[in-house]
Amino acid sequence: MATKPKTNNLKELKKSYLSKEVEHIDITKFNAVPIIEAMGKTAFQAKNLYRASLIFDKMIQDKDCTIILCLAGSLISAGLKKAISELIKNNMIDVIVSTGANLVDQDFFEALGFKHYQGTPFVDDNELRDLHIDRIYDTYIDEDELRICDETVTKIANKLKPLAYSSREFLYEMGKYLEKEGKNIDDSIVYNAYKYNLPLFCPAFSDSSAGFGLVLHQIQKKENSLAIDSVKDFRELTMIKIKSKETGILMIGGGVPKNFTQDIVVAAEVLGYDVPMHKYAVQITVADERDGGLSGSTLKEASSWGKVDQSFEQMVFCEATIAFPLLASYAYHKGSWKKRKPKRFL
Amino acid sequence: MATKPKTNNLKELKKSYLSKEVEHIDITKFNAVPIIEAMGKTAFQAKNLYRASLIFDKMIQDKDCTIILCLAGSLISAGLKKAISELIKNNMIDVIVSTGANLVDQDFFEALGFKHYQGTPFVDDNELRDLHIDRIYDTYIDEDELRICDETVTKIANKLKPLAYSSREFLYEMGKYLEKEGKNIDDSIVYNAYKYNLPLFCPAFSDSSAGFGLVLHQIQKKENSLAIDSVKDFRELTMIKIKSKETGILMIGGGVPKNFTQDIVVAAEVLGYDVPMHKYAVQITVADERDGGLSGSTLKEASSWGKVDQSFEQMVFCEATIAFPLLASYAYHKGSWKKRKPKRFL
Amino acid sequence: MATKPKTNNLKELKKSYLSKEVEHIDITKFNAVPIIEAMGKTAFQAKNLYRASLIFDKMIQDKDCTIILCLAGSLISAGLKKAISELIKNNMIDVIVSTGANLVDQDFFEALGFKHYQGTPFVDDNELRDLHIDRIYDTYIDEDELRICDETVTKIANKLKPLAYSSREFLYEMGKYLEKEGKNIDDSIVYNAYKYNLPLFCPAFSDSSAGFGLVLHQIQKKENSLAIDSVKDFRELTMIKIKSKETGILMIGGGVPKNFTQDIVVAAEVLGYDVPMHKYAVQITVADERDGGLSGSTLKEASSWGKVDQSFEQMVFCEATIAFPLLASYAYHKGSWKKRKPKRFL
Amino acid sequence: MATKPKTNNLKELKKSYLSKEVEHIDITKFNAVPIIEAMGKTAFQAKNLYRASLIFDKMIQDKDCTIILCLAGSLISAGLKKAISELIKNNMIDVIVSTGANLVDQDFFEALGFKHYQGTPFVDDNELRDLHIDRIYDTYIDEDELRICDETVTKIANKLKPLAYSSREFLYEMGKYLEKEGKNIDDSIVYNAYKYNLPLFCPAFSDSSAGFGLVLHQIQKKENSLAIDSVKDFRELTMIKIKSKETGILMIGGGVPKNFTQDIVVAAEVLGYDVPMHKYAVQITVADERDGGLSGSTLKEASSWGKVDQSFEQMVFCEATIAFPLLASYAYHKGSWKKRKPKRFL
Repeated sequence: MATKPKTNNLKELKKSYLSKEVEHIDITKFNAVPIIEAMGKTAFQAKNLYRASLIFDKMIQDKDCTIILCLAGSLISAGLKKAISELIKNNMIDVIVSTGANLVDQDFFEALGFKHYQGTPFVDDNELRDLHIDRIYDTYIDEDELRICDETVTKIANKLKPLAYSSREFLYEMGKYLEKEGKNIDDSIVYNAYKYNLPLFCPAFSDSSAGFGLVLHQIQKKENSLAIDSVKDFRELTMIKIKSKETGILMIGGGVPKNFTQDIVVAAEVLGYDVPMHKYAVQITVADERDGGLSGSTLKEASSWGKVDQSFEQMVFCEATIAFPLLASYAYHKGSWKKRKPKRFL
Repeated sequence: MATKPKTNNLKELKKSYLSKEVEHIDITKFNAVPIIEAMGKTAFQAKNLYRASLIFDKMIQDKDCTIILCLAGSLISAGLKKAISELIKNNMIDVIVSTGANLVDQDFFEALGFKHYQGTPFVDDNELRDLHIDRIYDTYIDEDELRICDETVTKIANKLKPLAYSSREFLYEMGKYLEKEGKNIDDSIVYNAYKYNLPLFCPAFSDSSAGFGLVLHQIQKKENSLAIDSVKDFRELTMIKIKSKETGILMIGGGVPKNFTQDIVVAAEVLGYDVPMHKYAVQITVADERDGGLSGSTLKEASSWGKVDQSFEQMVFCEATIAFPLLASYAYHKGSWKKRKPKRFL
Repeated sequence: MATKPKTNNLKELKKSYLSKEVEHIDITKFNAVPIIEAMGKTAFQAKNLYRASLIFDKMIQDKDCTIILCLAGSLISAGLKKAISELIKNNMIDVIVSTGANLVDQDFFEALGFKHYQGTPFVDDNELRDLHIDRIYDTYIDEDELRICDETVTKIANKLKPLAYSSREFLYEMGKYLEKEGKNIDDSIVYNAYKYNLPLFCPAFSDSSAGFGLVLHQIQKKENSLAIDSVKDFRELTMIKIKSKETGILMIGGGVPKNFTQDIVVAAEVLGYDVPMHKYAVQITVADERDGGLSGSTLKEASSWGKVDQSFEQMVFCEATIAFPLLASYAYHKGSWKKRKPKRFL
Repeated sequence: MATKPKTNNLKELKKSYLSKEVEHIDITKFNAVPIIEAMGKTAFQAKNLYRASLIFDKMIQDKDCTIILCLAGSLISAGLKKAISELIKNNMIDVIVSTGANLVDQDFFEALGFKHYQGTPFVDDNELRDLHIDRIYDTYIDEDELRICDETVTKIANKLKPLAYSSREFLYEMGKYLEKEGKNIDDSIVYNAYKYNLPLFCPAFSDSSAGFGLVLHQIQKKENSLAIDSVKDFRELTMIKIKSKETGILMIGGGVPKNFTQDIVVAAEVLGYDVPMHKYAVQITVADERDGGLSGSTLKEASSWGKVDQSFEQMVFCEATIAFPLLASYAYHKGSWKKRKPKRFL
């Protein structure tokens, strides 16, 4: 079905590659409750997805539970932005811990008015490079637009006092910037986190478009430049754990967000606090445990570390673009969030 | 959530393991069209699932197309029986090629009145063995009931003339048996294939509960025993290819059914017929191409063999219990099958 | 590194694709004992590979143990033929159960004098199709030569009495044919199995190049044609289980060979024999258990079915072209086979 | 083979779990050249491993090439420490970018005199938790010892001036600490990087045992505490790219190290430098591209971003404990490093 555009005009060729926008899936527009409940009586990953959905709904019902959403992988470029911002708007989550690509290269990028495009993995990457088109599996990005995203970060940094910031503090400034200058902010995660006072962490912040912008800032401003202190991130997130009666984590993908968030239980203990393990834990991933890596490590393994309770944990081995909209739509249409008060830590 | 039953009475213990039946998902009860269409504008496997659903619907719309469903993996025990039998009842498929476990150990087994049970993979397999409970990932089977299934196959074979049968012919006899003696046949694939004259092939027929029953039959009947001729299977399926203007294949899992069905294009050529490649091809699988195995080999690779056309092919890398009900519900609710006439080859 | 051949002459183009032969790895030429032993003190799959190697060596040391090798995937075209035939020649295995592609399309094919060629997966499959080149991931086959392989099977079948044969019986005839007519038989599995009286089973025999040849045979010979009775296969293999004190299985890949071989324990019981489970079991695979399929199902799961003992079982999650030569070289250089007497059942 | 220790004495029980140390594999003690070269004539991942080994050797031969090693996953606890430190000692790499767990929780931890232990994934994680034993797939760690590791980091930080440090600068201090206080430093990566002036980066430094120690430091020292500035990391690594004529990357696993290191090509451009893409790139991973995540994204995809040249890139889909020792032993025994001068940037 994917055919190579036929033209020798480079501008036209690029335009033909970037012609079909990724449209963000709207979990409020379809009701996944019947299908998820039917899946719950079957087996394998369908049943695991049901149990994960149930546990997420349990987190929402539990008045004592602070809910932390962890994001890894290319989720925003893949059309999951609106599904995530609905969770913010409807008090279904209290904290987000994410990789930088999701928040800066993709969400902030779109909030500036840019788009991601539907493509195909069966394409000549050398041609894409010549056209300044970046590829993520089957989606395309205009690299020239990405450079504007980098520059905007520099601009924001240049106006801030030269202190050590947590990624959360800097992302808050990015949300504030969007309020004035953003062009497509309704479903932006960075903007909505700012608007709803929801703490947004990015423990490897420089590992993103923000990194490009901040390196440039430091080069330009020299001694008068700011720093992004990842220790401060960890300290702030640990404080949220300490202030919470219970915590639940909903993880899409693994990586740093998963490890970082699981670790705050131990960090709180190191600081002398006697906190409970994460009471609820759900992970959607395609990784598995066979290589001993953290991303695919089971939540049972995490319980040996005293990080996650085994009572309400569930791995779902499924790619997120399929599993997450179903789970989120289930929780949305169950409506338990209607009675839930947000937990605000800012 | 899964707790070990507490009792020392073995019968009670077994009963407690086998207490929650697998219930087959009903694709007519929920409408996956909105979610699949929304997924089509996103990325990764969600978009692949949309394209696969679209291609399956295209097969149904194409009046010249014989549709072959390939089944591998433990699909029936996992609650997909009703989803598959709806495809038969509504003229959405014309031929089935399957592994033996799906058809005999699981579908025929349930048609005799037995059940599969919801369980967990986190269990002591030694205890299960002592209790005569067989496990498939998170489902349980009563081994003593499986033995009755084997015996029933022997009984059927003992009444047949001692000839060489294709698996299709033998499965037809099993469907006929169910018509009289079955206890739960409404959604049985073996029964409905018999009832609707839909050819049902099992190229590795002995590799199943049928194998146990037939070995016993051959031992009992000696010279007067029948044979299952796998060449006849291949010949019959090739004849269906030859008689069809176009063919489309919908594959759940890989294995022998995938290879066998792809191969009939070549088999027809070997017999001197000039047939087109499979025009449409969709596969749902978690296997990948990295080990060079057939199950995860791409459909593009199959096109180098002249088996599958590249115009309408799609791999969906997702576990079947999640992806197949969505795809089947999409095609069901699209309703293209309402205008479709079945292609009957028997 | 892989560059597209540049020529418009089709014959030349084809030749340039088929220029670098796959060369079979020789496990006797390198000694994997030191590396496997070092891996045994590490972790993850390296340690699993060590334990698997140890268990295979244990099988060889155990005088009561019949060793069954199960083959699935494209192993011969991938250069593992010599590694497997060494196991036959040195009494390290007693029975082989395989998919048809390995034995007919690949091993018998090479024994007729044809070759597999090194290629790349990053290639235009439409061009390959036009050139009659078949692709398996990164290897190429000349399709015209494959047709000769099919025809040879027809020729062999046409000379046999029109009876129902087990795949083992037919493969024996193919070995006998090679003795006279083969052109490259030294390391052929089909030939060496014939020569050493080692039973070679192919439970889905028609699902291969043999299938093409036998369908043609049945069309040509009509009532005077032979049948391949898969029940007979199962019966014969079950008899080997019954005659063996203990059994061990070494599985490369999953699929029908894995299921078929595990099932003979139950088949023996159905026939009224009280046989032990497979005492040793090793599987090398990249499949995992998450989809409930047989190929990736754990050997612990198999123990719930009473098929495999848990004392000496090991899954190795690694692609076979890397793991199998290491394991086989380990067992070869350990030399336990030097004191082993073959178990011959023919 | 894995049996549960039988004792009620908790101390004894813990000791029995922690009785078999992980021993680091020594790539100088076995010569993988013959096996890798033999694999190069076969197919699938064996051939990919050969090509990857060849490309790594090419990097070593190329006098203009700065070689960056990227580490993700639990590699040190899995016995790969010595294999990596050999690369440092023999001038086979110039820079390391790693996750925190490898460098702090595992390497620095062992350098303090502690050990990792061989275990099994088939174990009761609740019991492990009670015993303060942490599990990584099939390895065990004494949690009480990990706390000492955290505290040591606090101790080091407390003595430093309250500035913003890159992770590289802080890791250098950790190396210096080990020189005096370390108990098992011969093969320590942190120590040897310090000793050989090899820059060691950890872009998500707080996401490790170091994070625990540094949070405690910031709480204790308040305004007089240091910060870990991840922007500085990115700046420093980008400067290394700018100063290098060519670069090659050898990646074990994906995650932040992979992304961070690929990104420096773009970062250099953002700073106005016209640098070449990474000329060589090799990745060993079990992740695949189907979920659009960075870890499994192909190096061809990276070339669309202008980060990696397609001429010398190779993915190897294999678990690292098997593939890396083979690749490293190949390069070690090829001996091209003997003529190589280290590139020192400090």
